[in-house]
Amino acid sequence: MSELSHLNDEGRARMVDVNKKDDTNREAIACGSIFMKPETLSILKEGNIKKGDVLAVSQVAGIMGAKKTSELIPMCHNIFLSGSDISFKLNDEEGEIYIESKVKSTGKTGVEMEALTAVSIAALTIYDMCKAIDKEMYITEIKLLEKLGGKSGHYKRNG
Amino acid sequence: MSELSHLNDEGRARMVDVNKKDDTNREAIACGSIFMKPETLSILKEGNIKKGDVLAVSQVAGIMGAKKTSELIPMCHNIFLSGSDISFKLNDEEGEIYIESKVKSTGKTGVEMEALTAVSIAALTIYDMCKAIDKEMYITEIKLLEKLGGKSGHYKRNG
Amino acid sequence: MSELSHLNDEGRARMVDVNKKDDTNREAIACGSIFMKPETLSILKEGNIKKGDVLAVSQVAGIMGAKKTSELIPMCHNIFLSGSDISFKLNDEEGEIYIESKVKSTGKTGVEMEALTAVSIAALTIYDMCKAIDKEMYITEIKLLEKLGGKSGHYKRNG
Amino acid sequence: MSELSHLNDEGRARMVDVNKKDDTNREAIACGSIFMKPETLSILKEGNIKKGDVLAVSQVAGIMGAKKTSELIPMCHNIFLSGSDISFKLNDEEGEIYIESKVKSTGKTGVEMEALTAVSIAALTIYDMCKAIDKEMYITEIKLLEKLGGKSGHYKRNG
Amino acid sequence: MSELSHLNDEGRARMVDVNKKDDTNREAIACGSIFMKPETLSILKEGNIKKGDVLAVSQVAGIMGAKKTSELIPMCHNIFLSGSDISFKLNDEEGEIYIESKVKSTGKTGVEMEALTAVSIAALTIYDMCKAIDKEMYITEIKLLEKLGGKSGHYKRNG
Amino acid sequence: MSELSHLNDEGRARMVDVNKKDDTNREAIACGSIFMKPETLSILKEGNIKKGDVLAVSQVAGIMGAKKTSELIPMCHNIFLSGSDISFKLNDEEGEIYIESKVKSTGKTGVEMEALTAVSIAALTIYDMCKAIDKEMYITEIKLLEKLGGKSGHYKRNG
Repeated sequence: MSELSHLNDEGRARMVDVNKKDDTNREAIACGSIFMKPETLSILKEGNIKKGDVLAVSQVAGIMGAKKTSELIPMCHNIFLSGSDISFKLNDEEGEIYIESKVKSTGKTGVEMEALTAVSIAALTIYDMCKAIDKEMYITEIKLLEKLGGKSGHYKRNG
Repeated sequence: MSELSHLNDEGRARMVDVNKKDDTNREAIACGSIFMKPETLSILKEGNIKKGDVLAVSQVAGIMGAKKTSELIPMCHNIFLSGSDISFKLNDEEGEIYIESKVKSTGKTGVEMEALTAVSIAALTIYDMCKAIDKEMYITEIKLLEKLGGKSGHYKRNG
Repeated sequence: MSELSHLNDEGRARMVDVNKKDDTNREAIACGSIFMKPETLSILKEGNIKKGDVLAVSQVAGIMGAKKTSELIPMCHNIFLSGSDISFKLNDEEGEIYIESKVKSTGKTGVEMEALTAVSIAALTIYDMCKAIDKEMYITEIKLLEKLGGKSGHYKRNG
Repeated sequence: MSELSHLNDEGRARMVDVNKKDDTNREAIACGSIFMKPETLSILKEGNIKKGDVLAVSQVAGIMGAKKTSELIPMCHNIFLSGSDISFKLNDEEGEIYIESKVKSTGKTGVEMEALTAVSIAALTIYDMCKAIDKEMYITEIKLLEKLGGKSGHYKRNG
Repeated sequence: MSELSHLNDEGRARMVDVNKKDDTNREAIACGSIFMKPETLSILKEGNIKKGDVLAVSQVAGIMGAKKTSELIPMCHNIFLSGSDISFKLNDEEGEIYIESKVKSTGKTGVEMEALTAVSIAALTIYDMCKAIDKEMYITEIKLLEKLGGKSGHYKRNG
Repeated sequence: MSELSHLNDEGRARMVDVNKKDDTNREAIACGSIFMKPETLSILKEGNIKKGDVLAVSQVAGIMGAKKTSELIPMCHNIFLSGSDISFKLNDEEGEIYIESKVKSTGKTGVEMEALTAVSIAALTIYDMCKAIDKEMYITEIKLLEKLGGKSGHYKRNG
């Protein structure tokens, strides 16, 4: 029967022991979106091209956030990340910035939390840089898309 | 005309100068939800009552995350938080945990990023502690509900 | 003859080179106590059962503290922790909370500092949450109980 | 009647709101001891004089630890420290290093947690640098000696 | 007579007490350069225009580094930065990237360490991103250009 | 043809994937200098001998800074450091403190950034502790001296 593995015998939280797990190549892909007014996205894109680059800052923040995951998520293992990348897709009409992160590691634990954290921090950074002109933004649909490596094998999300 | 205040004359990012802003009492309320299978929520609640407390860990993580905001969001000011709280509402049928954060400060900048970060980290922590039994979870609708203090005055979200 | 290995040829501190040490499974158990007025412990326990959970916060802090050890202790190596757990025993009459931590790793260095740091931070967190009603608390007898793995082998404290 | 102020209405932990507290000069003095074999202390002192300085490293660690308090103790406010100092007394016969910290601030919250954290991290650092030659060390009697400023006024420990 | 203010009566380091200093507006400007092969700078500029932006990453790193100063420099006070900006000048023939940082604050201590740290981290980031194609780079002439506010008044470097 | 490996297909920054690189013993030696007025160096040395030890604090800061490298340099991998040491040479007439760092690791990436960061933070710490008596100091000639391990083999700087 299913159990929450993060609870110890006393029912309190613990960092799950992964000492006996194998070192394997692991990869996780996560995504999420931030929605804003189309005008806001249009100003961001102008800045992006002519003047500055909100997405460049967001991406750096996301990659640095992935490295900070174990400091932020209490029961998360601190791990060596062997690679990390973030990409964006812009939907002008919907005012959507779609964010996708890919994180790789060799080790005993999966990297889905790192990928999800990267997306979250990247989205929050876009929010921060645009909030002076748009307070109605929202961050949504943060989820795991794919996961490779480890005992549980290949996971790919349906829709 | 609207402009992204985080860009300097060269079009690169900067931390906006708030030296001339007044010190006022500031408050921000943000929210978001994590959706899981109703069975997962049911196991979490059992653990919550009989054995452990996923939400207690999530709440600690959210409050600590709020304090880390300026380390995570590149152009965010490091500020003194005078108070921080997080509460949860559970919807058994939908498998939803609704998270609401309230953050207070006295200072020159608003605390909406701190409130939004608190919700994001709290949600990611729930994800982490339940991911062994449910990979389909997703985090959604992270947004600012209310904001008090500062020159821009009282903001309250419509719906 | 015995020497302090953390000193370099000039007599200054250094991080000892462990490159040639073997990767082995390592484990350390440490403990410590915080003493308070029996009334304080009684209020903490009530909160624990009826309202909140000081020990849950303490435990999260201890586990997160273990992961921060190499940031806090200057000559400590940054290592991968494969597991971490904390448990409590309460002695009502003495007003004592006894804290025990167990930390595991696979690597080139022992994890006794991580176990000792976990206990220290867990105790400080209890202090923080009770200090409004009891200033006479004290933290005491923080020590290593057991250590496994590595060249020095199995160590178990006598009393 | 006494209550744990760190618990919210739902009985979960929160960062207490200090927005309405006055900014006053605050100071806290804390202490603690680490006991080791007299031979260990003797080697440490030799290193101290002839070759290196365990206490210099310990002191730096303690002062940096004080600044990290709000990252370590979940419900602790992040505050501006206006000054921080650590001193040592050595008792050769008992193998004791007595550590005293003094921390100052101007703000809305006391600095006793910063002073206690400084002592704890300073003691753990001494442990780390001597553990290769002495596993029987223990850290003990960490407590608040004195506290000035704030509504609760001057506190001085009895014995 | 001149004395190093960071030393306490025992001759050990301390964080200098600034409790009695006034809160004033403070500003510091620092600079430094990284030199590389002209070919390296040329590739960096191409990337800058056509493909990516090493300087955008460097700038984000510098601004975030400024906020981390008190974690890095042991006796440095943790302070509120009210603004932070970094700009670059490129000298194609010399293969030089000149980096200038400006940091502002309202408080009891100057911000020259924050400005110098921002330049250092920005330069190291450029090094990191170009090191695969040029190992001969060096970072040089990191210095304070100007300092305003505080008791010591206006300082401006000669040459 | 040479390319900046830190840029992804969209031309944005990424953390380079090192998953397929071999784990080898790696070592890097870096250096740099801080110049001050000869009188400042003389006061520092007196403090060093009679009263305190600026260089001890600088060294601790440099070693701790090496461990923080991946938090500071955005695209840098977080790695396990197996050893770290810093040494100083003083040139009284020139008012120069020459700083040399040696960092070791076993892993998939080189440690030159850690060695360069260690030197930078050590130099900034000296600056901080002497700035009250000398504002004309400057940090200069930070560079890689030697690098061992990894596919690119042994690198040794010419002059």
